[in-house]
Amino acid sequence: MNAQHEQAVTPGVLTGIGIGPGDPELITLKGLKAIQSAPVLAYPAPEQGESLARQIVAPHLDGHHIEICMRMPMVTARFPAREVYDWAAVEIATHLDAGRDVACLCEGDPFVYGSFSFLFARLVETHSVNVIPGVSSITACAAAVSAPLATRNDVLSLVPATLDETALASHLELVDAAAVIKVGRHLGKVRAVLEGLGLTQHAHYVERATMSAQRSLPLAEFSGESAPYFSMILVHKRGLAWN
Amino acid sequence: MNAQHEQAVTPGVLTGIGIGPGDPELITLKGLKAIQSAPVLAYPAPEQGESLARQIVAPHLDGHHIEICMRMPMVTARFPAREVYDWAAVEIATHLDAGRDVACLCEGDPFVYGSFSFLFARLVETHSVNVIPGVSSITACAAAVSAPLATRNDVLSLVPATLDETALASHLELVDAAAVIKVGRHLGKVRAVLEGLGLTQHAHYVERATMSAQRSLPLAEFSGESAPYFSMILVHKRGLAWN
Repeated sequence: MNAQHEQAVTPGVLTGIGIGPGDPELITLKGLKAIQSAPVLAYPAPEQGESLARQIVAPHLDGHHIEICMRMPMVTARFPAREVYDWAAVEIATHLDAGRDVACLCEGDPFVYGSFSFLFARLVETHSVNVIPGVSSITACAAAVSAPLATRNDVLSLVPATLDETALASHLELVDAAAVIKVGRHLGKVRAVLEGLGLTQHAHYVERATMSAQRSLPLAEFSGESAPYFSMILVHKRGLAWN
Repeated sequence: MNAQHEQAVTPGVLTGIGIGPGDPELITLKGLKAIQSAPVLAYPAPEQGESLARQIVAPHLDGHHIEICMRMPMVTARFPAREVYDWAAVEIATHLDAGRDVACLCEGDPFVYGSFSFLFARLVETHSVNVIPGVSSITACAAAVSAPLATRNDVLSLVPATLDETALASHLELVDAAAVIKVGRHLGKVRAVLEGLGLTQHAHYVERATMSAQRSLPLAEFSGESAPYFSMILVHKRGLAWN
């Protein structure tokens, strides 16, 4: 903290904004206002190429933002890309200390598997940080399958496909419904676990929910050997939950 | 189905719209457009008094809608109010068959513990039914606590407080983070289970997230004996998940 700045300017606020699962119209009014009123816009991007988060909000931008593009190395060993978050936190803090609000885009929701958590951890103790919740990809996938995912007294678990087979099986065995997230290269393992539990007929594969390239089909009819990052497998143990 | 009507008009579409957790600005652009373009608006309401769902969207209404108010008896034995949904499904079907689109409001998200599931079940086989996902109260509560609820490879479970103590404990024991929903009069039981698992210090109580009467405090500091319907207990086993 800089005492001179503290007297001179009111520090800015960092707002993590859930921009939803992909359809630009699934942003909230509140999220959109926070983006449009902030002078600085931060967002994650791949090491090369366009930022999906920025693409999602692009129809709503008017060109006035200072932009902070956080390019994430996709090398597994370096995940979660500590150096990039360290650098971005310093960049963002500089703007906040100068009195500029910063809007940080986050696909889905910031606090449910959102990348914003890593910036939050770096800045919450020294700066004002808010979060505007967003539409999670889990609810978007449920809409894509066109079936209720959880009703009444169902227990619904969100289970990363990165877990080992034993852990996956013990979680999937206990619950009424599940969203297996981060499927990607773990598809074969997830398939085997679901088959072992007799749940293949209750599983639905969804890819890029709410985006123009959305795919949604029963897992038994999906023949792929791997899946993209933006894919999920929903498990409705009671078949489709409206029955 | 009425053959005469089928020839005369294109049937309307029923859209279940997730209107978010309570703040009128947490509706999505897509949800708002669907509400504004439909001639008929359906929403749940208590047996007496105002509909919370309608109140949430009230700032966005211009008075053009035919309204279907679904008044739900709060008598536990009659939950989920089959007769009301049966009646509403007939009302809605009449509008759809006459070519009028119907927008049905649902607090939070329609397919994750949403009341819309019961209408969906009654109409999906005979009519066109869409869902627009919304901001779930779970992500809203995480924002209210101001801490990431799930990160990296966490398993996150949504667990209804209506389960018995043994079931609650077995679910809460297995996961990294949990949202105990529908707390209400089950508060004492949930408290006892969390205490038994040594999780009280990791639990946070949230009431009416994103509404003007929002309360958010550590469970250990909440002395109430019961809780309102719109309350939740979030459990972050690793303390607050950014650590």
